[in-house]
Amino acid sequence: MPVITLLTDFGLADSYAGEVKGAILSLHPAAPIVDLTHLVPAGSVASGAYLLGRACLRFPVGSVHLAVVDPGVGTARAAIAFRAHGHAFVGPDNGLFTELFGGLEDDVIALDVPAHAAPTFHGRDVFGPAAARLLMGYPPSALGHPLGRAPMALPQLAPFHDGPVLVGEVIHVDGFGTLVTNIPAMSVPPEASIWYHATSIGPMHRTFADVPTGELLALEGSGGRLEVAVRDGSAASRLGAGLGSEVRVRPPDSPAGAMRG
Amino acid sequence: MPVITLLTDFGLADSYAGEVKGAILSLHPAAPIVDLTHLVPAGSVASGAYLLGRACLRFPVGSVHLAVVDPGVGTARAAIAFRAHGHAFVGPDNGLFTELFGGLEDDVIALDVPAHAAPTFHGRDVFGPAAARLLMGYPPSALGHPLGRAPMALPQLAPFHDGPVLVGEVIHVDGFGTLVTNIPAMSVPPEASIWYHATSIGPMHRTFADVPTGELLALEGSGGRLEVAVRDGSAASRLGAGLGSEVRVRPPDSPAGAMRG
Amino acid sequence: MPVITLLTDFGLADSYAGEVKGAILSLHPAAPIVDLTHLVPAGSVASGAYLLGRACLRFPVGSVHLAVVDPGVGTARAAIAFRAHGHAFVGPDNGLFTELFGGLEDDVIALDVPAHAAPTFHGRDVFGPAAARLLMGYPPSALGHPLGRAPMALPQLAPFHDGPVLVGEVIHVDGFGTLVTNIPAMSVPPEASIWYHATSIGPMHRTFADVPTGELLALEGSGGRLEVAVRDGSAASRLGAGLGSEVRVRPPDSPAGAMRG
Repeated sequence: MPVITLLTDFGLADSYAGEVKGAILSLHPAAPIVDLTHLVPAGSVASGAYLLGRACLRFPVGSVHLAVVDPGVGTARAAIAFRAHGHAFVGPDNGLFTELFGGLEDDVIALDVPAHAAPTFHGRDVFGPAAARLLMGYPPSALGHPLGRAPMALPQLAPFHDGPVLVGEVIHVDGFGTLVTNIPAMSVPPEASIWYHATSIGPMHRTFADVPTGELLALEGSGGRLEVAVRDGSAASRLGAGLGSEVRVRPPDSPAGAMRG
Repeated sequence: MPVITLLTDFGLADSYAGEVKGAILSLHPAAPIVDLTHLVPAGSVASGAYLLGRACLRFPVGSVHLAVVDPGVGTARAAIAFRAHGHAFVGPDNGLFTELFGGLEDDVIALDVPAHAAPTFHGRDVFGPAAARLLMGYPPSALGHPLGRAPMALPQLAPFHDGPVLVGEVIHVDGFGTLVTNIPAMSVPPEASIWYHATSIGPMHRTFADVPTGELLALEGSGGRLEVAVRDGSAASRLGAGLGSEVRVRPPDSPAGAMRG
Repeated sequence: MPVITLLTDFGLADSYAGEVKGAILSLHPAAPIVDLTHLVPAGSVASGAYLLGRACLRFPVGSVHLAVVDPGVGTARAAIAFRAHGHAFVGPDNGLFTELFGGLEDDVIALDVPAHAAPTFHGRDVFGPAAARLLMGYPPSALGHPLGRAPMALPQLAPFHDGPVLVGEVIHVDGFGTLVTNIPAMSVPPEASIWYHATSIGPMHRTFADVPTGELLALEGSGGRLEVAVRDGSAASRLGAGLGSEVRVRPPDSPAGAMRG
């Protein structure tokens, strides 16, 4: 049984997420709804894209994923829906779906926005009803017209090379203060050393318990990315790092001069 | 399919909301339950009344809304249930349902409180079971006896006039720091100017993007109230405002003397 | 209809809890899932054990309770499943289930850990799938082999006597700042006085409203434990107390010398 998942930066102190659910249930009263998170840092599209990308395909095929991190709500940015990897997606065209476009199955659709939609709350008045209809079996094409151009994608989700050094950035800080980078763990060579500015994090480890309590370590996170953590502590606090901070992977045979402070 | 919604100030760090759900599911194992929010500021009945009022009627007709912001739990305040606008409601008689009484369908019922109810947790031991029974089809009258007087209503949910100036107050601060007032947006004349003490917020706008990033604006919120916001920022922090802060609407032709600092 | 409940320290800002739900729903698409809380203080097994113990048996018989507060994830600590009190449980063998072992129905099972399980996320890759299978009717014994020793239990969940004085500790601080102790309220004699170090909290009361706003009181919490609270305020802030803080119950006829500062 497919479900509708929700990922937003609405927070949990308001009725916003609840109203989206009301909008869905008013059209599709039996829709199963699962919260991914409503605490994406406000306006942080890269964090939202990372979380959505790692979580959504773990749900049953045919599920619908509503994602709203939307600082441009009410402007001319498009509202989109599309199918990819056997799932359906709906939300703003601002890069939030960057991780999914590799599995596109048909046209990205620009949703029709009803005249009565509140200009500050497309989550409730546009995306929620669209998600309900997608779960009911409507194809995206029934909800609007082809976007007619490539949807927005985030450049910062891809690391780059500076000579032999792989340069990435922090795209998410998790609730434990662990720094999640845009670097796929499988692209980190064994014996490579990980650096945060002038601080050596050392080589990749398997799990937190491989280092003593309170020590920094690099490891493959459960989302498949290179992460920098402190065992039983917060790497974000220890390093003073956050969204956008640079992390470098230096291969074992790279010259020291390639490292910068 | 109607649902049971929950709105409380229980927070999310405890098992309190979970135990309410356990109490509901023990009586009605298939009850669909939706969280509106559990992060109403502790004891803030006006914030809870606002959030409940704007969200509840967006759910399917026949839904049951359990609301508990209840600093008087265990005192003589009544526990009530009633039907209004095609929905049912259950919670403490302290003004939390102020926005709903306009649609009352029959008597407000004072719930019988079982002797075994924990004096500090009527949410689990009184309101949860009542909500389950209401969803099962019991009328409120089967759960107690008529209250026999008007239920409590909050005076602060209505703005008032000071000469030509409409004077309201902040009844909720949302998770983005936006100030939600008790002033219906449709009662704000075009060209009126909005003031927070001596600070001019300007006229009503349509959406955040109508002003540059970091600027104050007034707009109609998605709940139909006058709101004061900062684009991509927090009006609460900028203005030092919070629950109970006064906001004034000055019509275009009102004398300047009507404005106070 | 039994459900799967979730209790973790994963927080709500990540997709972790959502991914556990995805893992469950991929195996058992109709599984009803209820969050107890995901905000157990990070790594606080005693807090988690208390919350799980007070909440879980309020759900329908046959429910499955997944609990993950697991600072030792990826180490040699066992992953366990068992049945007790007509319910099933799954999570790490670190004391989190201390409150439940009194109702054990058969062997505690050490779960098989699949080779592909992420070493940092057994919640998703081990416990989630096990919970789905338990709800589908698999006995714990089908998911691994007998643990072959007693499961871990937390000593700090039991208070002790210092002469006539009952000495307990704070095992949970709730969202209102109320201190929950490990002392069963029924073991507090009428007329006993409660002490936090040199501060007298006074005798047991029935509910918050029995003292004026802002005053300290002791009372039986809705989980059946002795709690120390401030009416409309936070006892944790007032007393500077937290997890592990000592609370003493002095019977009415005990010599003053038994009290320590």
